[in-house]
Amino acid sequence: MSAFSRFTPLAQSLPASVPFVGPEALERRLGRKVAARIGANESGFGPAPSVLAAMRDAAEGIWQYNDPENVALKQALAADLGVTSAHLAIGEGIDALLGQIVRLTVAPGQPVVTSLGAYPTFNYHVTGHGGRLVTVPYHNDREDLDALLDAVRREDAPLVYLANPDNPMGSWWPAARVADFADALPETTLLVLDEAYGETAPEGTLPAIDRLIERPNVMRTRTFSKAYGLAGARVGYVISTPDNAAAFDKIRNHFGMNRVATAGALAALADQAYLQTVLTRIDASRERIGRIASACGLVALPSATNFVAIDTGRDEGHARAIVDRLMADHGVFIRMPGVAPLNRCIRISTGPEAEMALLEDALPQVLKALA
Amino acid sequence: MSAFSRFTPLAQSLPASVPFVGPEALERRLGRKVAARIGANESGFGPAPSVLAAMRDAAEGIWQYNDPENVALKQALAADLGVTSAHLAIGEGIDALLGQIVRLTVAPGQPVVTSLGAYPTFNYHVTGHGGRLVTVPYHNDREDLDALLDAVRREDAPLVYLANPDNPMGSWWPAARVADFADALPETTLLVLDEAYGETAPEGTLPAIDRLIERPNVMRTRTFSKAYGLAGARVGYVISTPDNAAAFDKIRNHFGMNRVATAGALAALADQAYLQTVLTRIDASRERIGRIASACGLVALPSATNFVAIDTGRDEGHARAIVDRLMADHGVFIRMPGVAPLNRCIRISTGPEAEMALLEDALPQVLKALA
Repeated sequence: MSAFSRFTPLAQSLPASVPFVGPEALERRLGRKVAARIGANESGFGPAPSVLAAMRDAAEGIWQYNDPENVALKQALAADLGVTSAHLAIGEGIDALLGQIVRLTVAPGQPVVTSLGAYPTFNYHVTGHGGRLVTVPYHNDREDLDALLDAVRREDAPLVYLANPDNPMGSWWPAARVADFADALPETTLLVLDEAYGETAPEGTLPAIDRLIERPNVMRTRTFSKAYGLAGARVGYVISTPDNAAAFDKIRNHFGMNRVATAGALAALADQAYLQTVLTRIDASRERIGRIASACGLVALPSATNFVAIDTGRDEGHARAIVDRLMADHGVFIRMPGVAPLNRCIRISTGPEAEMALLEDALPQVLKALA
Repeated sequence: MSAFSRFTPLAQSLPASVPFVGPEALERRLGRKVAARIGANESGFGPAPSVLAAMRDAAEGIWQYNDPENVALKQALAADLGVTSAHLAIGEGIDALLGQIVRLTVAPGQPVVTSLGAYPTFNYHVTGHGGRLVTVPYHNDREDLDALLDAVRREDAPLVYLANPDNPMGSWWPAARVADFADALPETTLLVLDEAYGETAPEGTLPAIDRLIERPNVMRTRTFSKAYGLAGARVGYVISTPDNAAAFDKIRNHFGMNRVATAGALAALADQAYLQTVLTRIDASRERIGRIASACGLVALPSATNFVAIDTGRDEGHARAIVDRLMADHGVFIRMPGVAPLNRCIRISTGPEAEMALLEDALPQVLKALA
């Protein structure tokens, strides 16, 4: 063994697990390039030209650390959301913020409630901080609000995770149901309301900011990685009470934000016209994926996100075979949910027409080969 | 109170401290722009033109997450260092890696040894994870290797921090002394050997990679933030044993690296000719700062880094006044060590001639005003 002999007991107990295998790892393993990158819910539509221009302009200043207080980005977000800068915490994507939320909230051994099959990176952080995952099955491919609430109460959990819209199923609850869920939680349970896919959801899906902003037991997470097309930039934020937002200052990397990424996020926020064009394209792509699925006799689930879950009508083995063959034989990178019964589905990200055409060509071939 | 009522006891106990106040915060506070940004040990010489070009080219792909395994960057670093990719862990700057090292190593209440006045962000992470800081005074403005070793043994500390070259004093130990220090440590004490300023040190300062690579109780940290001029990019790495490098996979944010930053780091590593020109300019700037200091009757300390500590010959109050007046009256941003006796000094980063000229003009005026 070449490991230091005295890592903490928690560190020693952790598996060397990885939440997701990246498409680059698949390329290396299979020795073939990804032709259609529609598996990680990135936005193949890309960020706005104005964002690329802003980032290229900002490159010159990359020798400087970013403003550790993130004032400009907070002000722009605050104006956009109708809150104050004090209500916001900025981080290196929602992933980093989820890690910080777990670290602030979960002591070793404490229970954390989430849905069985929901975002694996949240689970990774819970395990990484010694928390005990308590999972609740999806109901009709939606996160089950009543069951989540029951589990929170039964376990006296300090933390519960809810994504609305949901990943990996693309399902969603209307705003009123989510707000009622938040209201019903004990004050001693923090709700992480992950709204990574908020921009792509139908109107009436996101609770109004005012509706939850005064609740110290609610943190809403959002990102520039999805609709804004900046996954590789690592910019996310939390909307919560001022004291909660300030708590991140106790543990975050104050100089952790990339300076060019921050410039990109600011430009993205300023170019709402581009965002609207992307939302239109995402909507059209969702429908296109639905038509491709139904032409193959598969059923696309309704989606409020930038991806579509497709029911293969069979089991995990079948879904896994589709995912594997699409990549191995056609370079079409998609993913699938990790646990039953969700893993009867495959999950395909929206994207430009070139990627959709590859999918349209490859999927029937794969299904035929597997028949 | 608008804070969640059930943050962990550790989180509740943490101060809302910030390791450093950024120059942007000073600008906002004082209502004046920084004219000479020579306080944060950034590189005003900037990254190579080839790096800027690579980053601008890579911007187009920012919609994609970075390869979570960082294979390309690891391979390039491995070739450069003469190790394998398995010996490396990549992270969002040394700051993030220090946080991960502390998290892997320090359970709440355990002692961690460092030098009194050494890198505050390391201390911030130790405190943030509930560790107990045990500090050893500098001796003759150097980190005191014998005293650090004594403290490690006395406390049975799982972790000890040593920066070589040192920040904030710019001092250094020859490679053999550092390697002997590593040899003398108990196997149950992990040495973080922070070589953030390694590129700017005289030959013979960094132990050969081979000398320490098989020690499971040594992790060496390096960065693209200093000599390579990419502070705002957030790219750092750890050199250690394969099992130690793999331990980071248990807790890091696998998709945490910025894609454009990674492209920049790769290009920076490939342009060693540019690095050499920067090292020449840093050396010249160190001498220039020395001459500016001595023209004012102050003594510049020898430096192996991209900054120079200058002994003001008086106390903290005087040094603080110089730092404050330089910024408030002249827009010259510098910093100073945080604790006695180091805080009799001011600390000035090397930089281009325009910044040096501003310093040359401002420093005598400030000293005269304070006389």
